[in-house]
Amino acid sequence: MSRISTHSELRYTVESPSAFFFSVVAVPFNSKKVVDERLDIVPHGPIRREPFGPTGHEIVRVLAEPGPLSLVYDAIVTVSAYVPEVAPAGETNFADLPVDVLPFLLPSRFCQSDLLSRVAAKEFDGLAPGFERITGVCNWVYDHLDYVPGSTGSSTTAVDVLVQGAGVCRDYAHLAIALCRALGVPARYLSGYAVDLDPPDFHGFFEAYLDGEWYLFDATRMAPIDGLVRIGVGRDAGDVPFASFVGWATLDEMVVSTIDLDRTEPDDGTTTAAISTA
Amino acid sequence: MSRISTHSELRYTVESPSAFFFSVVAVPFNSKKVVDERLDIVPHGPIRREPFGPTGHEIVRVLAEPGPLSLVYDAIVTVSAYVPEVAPAGETNFADLPVDVLPFLLPSRFCQSDLLSRVAAKEFDGLAPGFERITGVCNWVYDHLDYVPGSTGSSTTAVDVLVQGAGVCRDYAHLAIALCRALGVPARYLSGYAVDLDPPDFHGFFEAYLDGEWYLFDATRMAPIDGLVRIGVGRDAGDVPFASFVGWATLDEMVVSTIDLDRTEPDDGTTTAAISTA
Amino acid sequence: MSRISTHSELRYTVESPSAFFFSVVAVPFNSKKVVDERLDIVPHGPIRREPFGPTGHEIVRVLAEPGPLSLVYDAIVTVSAYVPEVAPAGETNFADLPVDVLPFLLPSRFCQSDLLSRVAAKEFDGLAPGFERITGVCNWVYDHLDYVPGSTGSSTTAVDVLVQGAGVCRDYAHLAIALCRALGVPARYLSGYAVDLDPPDFHGFFEAYLDGEWYLFDATRMAPIDGLVRIGVGRDAGDVPFASFVGWATLDEMVVSTIDLDRTEPDDGTTTAAISTA
Amino acid sequence: MSRISTHSELRYTVESPSAFFFSVVAVPFNSKKVVDERLDIVPHGPIRREPFGPTGHEIVRVLAEPGPLSLVYDAIVTVSAYVPEVAPAGETNFADLPVDVLPFLLPSRFCQSDLLSRVAAKEFDGLAPGFERITGVCNWVYDHLDYVPGSTGSSTTAVDVLVQGAGVCRDYAHLAIALCRALGVPARYLSGYAVDLDPPDFHGFFEAYLDGEWYLFDATRMAPIDGLVRIGVGRDAGDVPFASFVGWATLDEMVVSTIDLDRTEPDDGTTTAAISTA
Repeated sequence: MSRISTHSELRYTVESPSAFFFSVVAVPFNSKKVVDERLDIVPHGPIRREPFGPTGHEIVRVLAEPGPLSLVYDAIVTVSAYVPEVAPAGETNFADLPVDVLPFLLPSRFCQSDLLSRVAAKEFDGLAPGFERITGVCNWVYDHLDYVPGSTGSSTTAVDVLVQGAGVCRDYAHLAIALCRALGVPARYLSGYAVDLDPPDFHGFFEAYLDGEWYLFDATRMAPIDGLVRIGVGRDAGDVPFASFVGWATLDEMVVSTIDLDRTEPDDGTTTAAISTA
Repeated sequence: MSRISTHSELRYTVESPSAFFFSVVAVPFNSKKVVDERLDIVPHGPIRREPFGPTGHEIVRVLAEPGPLSLVYDAIVTVSAYVPEVAPAGETNFADLPVDVLPFLLPSRFCQSDLLSRVAAKEFDGLAPGFERITGVCNWVYDHLDYVPGSTGSSTTAVDVLVQGAGVCRDYAHLAIALCRALGVPARYLSGYAVDLDPPDFHGFFEAYLDGEWYLFDATRMAPIDGLVRIGVGRDAGDVPFASFVGWATLDEMVVSTIDLDRTEPDDGTTTAAISTA
Repeated sequence: MSRISTHSELRYTVESPSAFFFSVVAVPFNSKKVVDERLDIVPHGPIRREPFGPTGHEIVRVLAEPGPLSLVYDAIVTVSAYVPEVAPAGETNFADLPVDVLPFLLPSRFCQSDLLSRVAAKEFDGLAPGFERITGVCNWVYDHLDYVPGSTGSSTTAVDVLVQGAGVCRDYAHLAIALCRALGVPARYLSGYAVDLDPPDFHGFFEAYLDGEWYLFDATRMAPIDGLVRIGVGRDAGDVPFASFVGWATLDEMVVSTIDLDRTEPDDGTTTAAISTA
Repeated sequence: MSRISTHSELRYTVESPSAFFFSVVAVPFNSKKVVDERLDIVPHGPIRREPFGPTGHEIVRVLAEPGPLSLVYDAIVTVSAYVPEVAPAGETNFADLPVDVLPFLLPSRFCQSDLLSRVAAKEFDGLAPGFERITGVCNWVYDHLDYVPGSTGSSTTAVDVLVQGAGVCRDYAHLAIALCRALGVPARYLSGYAVDLDPPDFHGFFEAYLDGEWYLFDATRMAPIDGLVRIGVGRDAGDVPFASFVGWATLDEMVVSTIDLDRTEPDDGTTTAAISTA
């Protein structure tokens, strides 16, 4: 059992009446529980917290008048029963996929799996289907990309990343997701918090659907797999921005920090492990 | 009140055990009711009909052994109370969009609305928000594209279509959807049957979310707006293929026909009208 | 007769032995003569000035050791006999194009004319072939793009610019060139200096081949057409970078200024005129 | 010494007066000499043979009236002194590249070398610069692509091919050329005839500039390296189509055959060798 503390802080100058949707709330996930949390939005205006989709993702809607707007969110998340095993999970037959899993087998805006079937087959057909093959995808993505902050933007796709050979966490996840789907394995994007991220920021990782469950993967090797806290789930990062708004506003400051309150030594961050989801 | 008869017929040679998902079943839609239907799959193997998503879309799963496989689907759909009005519907504020509508505001695989914000603003900012503006989008798409069978393929996107200036029904819908989303109007893709389509085929059209309801549009002007029968709904055509399978099979023949049983004169097909959905 | 003064200044910190190619030298062009010039490179190392191609474009090669490197280039250019007429030039038949003009009819890295034939035909088939049609292309590009510094980068193409609706001078030229070639009119990219550019910088414009001669156009309307001084000519901007190098160096400062020494009032910059080239 | 016989035959139905440019004439190349040739165009109309560029590439211009048009070209080419050595050639320093070689270091329409610098560095930085490294590029391209007729079209680029993992001869050459340029090695596209090609067709291959000379490579391994006969040279395939025309005509039939008149056994086609050019 360990405890993770997450903190995010967003400060805007709002220039005209604007409607914000924030996705920063930590949600229960695998063996993780949110035992305490606090959301402060100043000024106190019309605010609505609302579940989005069946996965617990929570959206915070804020109507803001011109002037400063700040959102501060803190949570304490407990992690229990983590087993960093090499799971023997196999792949689920296409015929047996539940209908709510099907959308995650299809190509999406940033994960054009339909374009990568040959590359996926050539690189990964030799691996055992299931956990081993998806681990192979993670290792391949890790080897083929350089982690270069600023090398990509909000319209960069998995195909762009494959070609340019560089990206950040969302790009690693996008390329891995696209390859999974090209192999016939449903995969979905997770936004969240991650212990020990350097520099501190929101993080992006992914899940693959194996043997009837969603398994967690992170091809970046930038955080311990049990240090990932989930905010939202989508087909790709386009579905789960930490904030979006209509109106006119400027983000002046963003602070994110995620700390393992019980860890005494830093993780070496060299594994691309996975954990079975509840 | 009129009645539409839809017919689709798919014949495959299956080379190895294959799992098929078919989306050919007509579903209730606006003032349309499915009053009779018949689904014949030969040989009779393990078949499962299953709702997909909250919109009534129905998936037919078939496990097929090597040999011939045929699917024939017939339905009679009644259309009542159709009012081809010019609806005065306005747009819904971002802040008020229901959570289940939000995904249709986001870019998708074939509708990269994030790339088209300037084009959309430049072309349509002068039109009144709502029904008039979306009608303007349809007219613009109709004017800017040539309908050229074979000019596009399964990986062609709205951006590709904008650049090349040609496409088929799915491309018209994709470009219109991308422009709607770029304007802040949720839009979704519908696959279906369409009366008087020439040549006969499955059809693709779209809905835009205005004033709290989904309104139907078809930028191709190839069928009367009350002659559209819905099969499925998705973010774009990638979500609602009429058939997909894993295995090894060849489509030998496809026949689609859609007839208005009560119409005596052909529609002139020159309107891009819309109807409020139930 | 008027005189233009051009000035460019590039300051690098060289980290490892590097080989530079500079394209900053003004060349004779239409009715323009270079009457005085001075090139200062410090430190004085191995330098070679060399003509590149048949158009007078001059390359300066510099081998630089670690340490500071600066290049300062000044020229005085006289402009005579400028007639800002609306030229009646027509288009040259494909069969009669000289072989050295043919490459400028073909698509290039940043001007994918092969993808734009429908758009070009739809927009410009109604205009009289020749000068009028190319002027129409310039006007269309001017209307469809917003001039937004920073909106594009070194890998942005004409197609990207068409889709995103924004760019800078090189993008305006690329889109216009691509459309010309799609119409069957050879077009080439010119890098150079431009009077009254705000902010001051190197400039990009283009020439179209009409009636056996190259005619100058600038779709940006940012400088008077007789205030354009030529440095280099290529298929697109990729062919004529102001500087390229192999090694390791950082550009610390770039200053460009171009002044009409004899003009007393500023040009209003609202024409997209053209001048017949010598 | 051996002799190669090349034959090409193009038959059109011309619908309106059309201007054709043909590039089918074999030219001297390395140790190859054209010892006999015959060009028959029926009907005999205005025809012009003209050199294009400094490499000997010859263009045949034909003005055709409505009706049938046929072009038949036959040549006998001798090959002497072929040494299929593994050449020890190194790479030429950027600073020392002749100006007429520089264009082949730049990105072109179908070879976007500017986008592939990381992939090129990651894959080939470990190889010895020069002949060994370019051979490594050829082997990598051969391994990463499937040769699939019909998988690509006239607008397919090197980047598209890298992503989709399949192509034909022009695509193999494009990807190899793009990678060479990304490594700082000038490379150019050659169209031509190739002995033993199956199915018979025109062929595309490439040259890389090493140690002051152009070396021939073919990443497809579909023909013996000394069985390649040159027609034209360009930055990529877009520069050297075997035929282009303005007007209205249909290609009814194309026959190409290339035979080694002196070979008794077929080549096993498994080498990606190279020969120094004269």
